[in-house]
Amino acid sequence: MKMKRRLLLVSNSTLHGGGYLDHCQQNISHFFGKDVKRVLFVPYALHDRDAYTKTARDKFQTLGYEVDGIHEAPDPVGAVRKAEAIFIGGGNTFRLLKSLYDNKVVSEIRRRVLEDGVPYMGSSAGTNVSTISINTTNDMPIVYPPSFSAIGLVPFNINPHYLDPNPNSRHMGETREQRITQYHEEPDTPCVLGLREGSMLLVEGNKATLLGTTKARLFTRGKPSVEYDPGSDLSFLLTH
Amino acid sequence: MKMKRRLLLVSNSTLHGGGYLDHCQQNISHFFGKDVKRVLFVPYALHDRDAYTKTARDKFQTLGYEVDGIHEAPDPVGAVRKAEAIFIGGGNTFRLLKSLYDNKVVSEIRRRVLEDGVPYMGSSAGTNVSTISINTTNDMPIVYPPSFSAIGLVPFNINPHYLDPNPNSRHMGETREQRITQYHEEPDTPCVLGLREGSMLLVEGNKATLLGTTKARLFTRGKPSVEYDPGSDLSFLLTH
Ligand SMILES: [Ca+2]
Ligand SMILES: [Ca+2]
Repeated sequence: MKMKRRLLLVSNSTLHGGGYLDHCQQNISHFFGKDVKRVLFVPYALHDRDAYTKTARDKFQTLGYEVDGIHEAPDPVGAVRKAEAIFIGGGNTFRLLKSLYDNKVVSEIRRRVLEDGVPYMGSSAGTNVSTISINTTNDMPIVYPPSFSAIGLVPFNINPHYLDPNPNSRHMGETREQRITQYHEEPDTPCVLGLREGSMLLVEGNKATLLGTTKARLFTRGKPSVEYDPGSDLSFLLTH
Repeated sequence: MKMKRRLLLVSNSTLHGGGYLDHCQQNISHFFGKDVKRVLFVPYALHDRDAYTKTARDKFQTLGYEVDGIHEAPDPVGAVRKAEAIFIGGGNTFRLLKSLYDNKVVSEIRRRVLEDGVPYMGSSAGTNVSTISINTTNDMPIVYPPSFSAIGLVPFNINPHYLDPNPNSRHMGETREQRITQYHEEPDTPCVLGLREGSMLLVEGNKATLLGTTKARLFTRGKPSVEYDPGSDLSFLLTH
C-alpha cells in the first residue's frame, strides 16, 4: 500500500520576536497548497478554545485558508471525517491528548491521515500527539489521559522546543538531554528527534525532511546523539 | 485522632556548587534526631538503584544513620512495615510513582507515616509523590503510572525546583508560572507550593513551616500568587 501520509510537524508556534506562526508561514502555505480551502483546527490544548480558534483563524485567513474549530462542530468525529486538512495547535500536551481520547477522535484522525492522505499540521503539543506517544513532551501533567500512546502518524518520538544545556545555569533540574537519556533507560524506547525552536519536520509518504532555520538533535537508545542540519533527509526514521 | 505526621519535604537534592544533600544536612539531622538509627531509602526514581543507594548511604553515614535500600529487601511492603524512617530520593517522578504502585507500597507508606508517625523525608520527585498527586512535577513522562494520585501525606501540591521566569530568555516554552496557571484552569485543583531550590517544608502534625534559604511562592486557584519567606507558618495548607 502506498503511504499517503503528509505531515508538517512544527517545534513551536511562535518564535522569539515574531507573531503566531510567522516563522513557518511559507512552509504552511506550501504544505496545504492551493487545493485546501478549509482547515479543521483542534484547540484542545488550551483552556479557552474559542479564543484559541480565533487566533488560528485570523492567521490562516491571511494565508488564504478558512478555519473550523473542531469544538464548534456538533460531532467531532464527523468533523474529522469531513476534514480537508487538520491542524492541532500547541498548549498542554496532557490536556490535548485527554481531550482527543474523550472526544474519540484519535483513531479517526490516524485513519484520515494515513489512509485518506488528509494533510496534518501539528505545532508543539500538536506535534507531540502526532507521534507514537507523548512520553517526550515538556509539559506539566495537569490531567491524566487514558494512555500516553498518541495518534501514531510516525513511529518515533519528537521533543519540541528542544533546548541545549545552559552552561551558566545554576538551576539543578535535569537538562533536556538528561530527561531524554532517562527515557532511553527504559527498554525498547524509540528514537527521539529534538526539534529546536525554528525547526520542523516535513513528512511526505516515506520521505522525511528537516526544514526551518535551526538544527535538530537525534537521540537513539544506546547510541551517541547526532546533529542534523536543515535540509537533512531523515526518512530512515520512518522505517521501524 | 492526633495526627502524628512528620515530614521533611525538600525541593532539591543538590544545590549549585554543593554536594549531595549538603544544603539541608543540618535539617536532616534535626529531623530524624538521635532515636532513628536506620533509614529506609527508596531509589525508584533513578535507573541504577544500587548506585543511587550507595550515594544516599554514604551521605547518611556521615550524619550517623544507616541506610537500607528498599530494593534490597525481599519484600518491599515488609520493609516499609519495619521501617523506622523513610527517605524517597529524586529523579524521574513518573518512574518513581509507577514503581511505588508496581511494588504496592503506596498505601503502606501512607499508613506508616500518618498512623504510626514514621518520619518521611522526600527530595524533589520524592517530595512530589508525598503530596496529593504528581500533577505539578517538572519531569518528563517517560513511563505511564496507573494514576497521578500519589501518597497523599499532605492535601496540596508542591512544585519542586520552582523557577522564576527569566526575562532574558528567548525560549518560548511555557514558564513555570504559566504551567501552574494551566493546572489551575482545571476544576477543583488544590494549592501548589512552588519550592525554590534551597527551600523545604517541615510538617509536624498539623503545623507546617517553610525552612531553608529561599522564598516559596504559593499558587491558589483563582487568586493571585503569594510569596513566603523562610520561617513562615504555612499550617493553613494542611486544612482542606
Ligand atoms: Ca506546551
Ligand atoms: Ca526530576
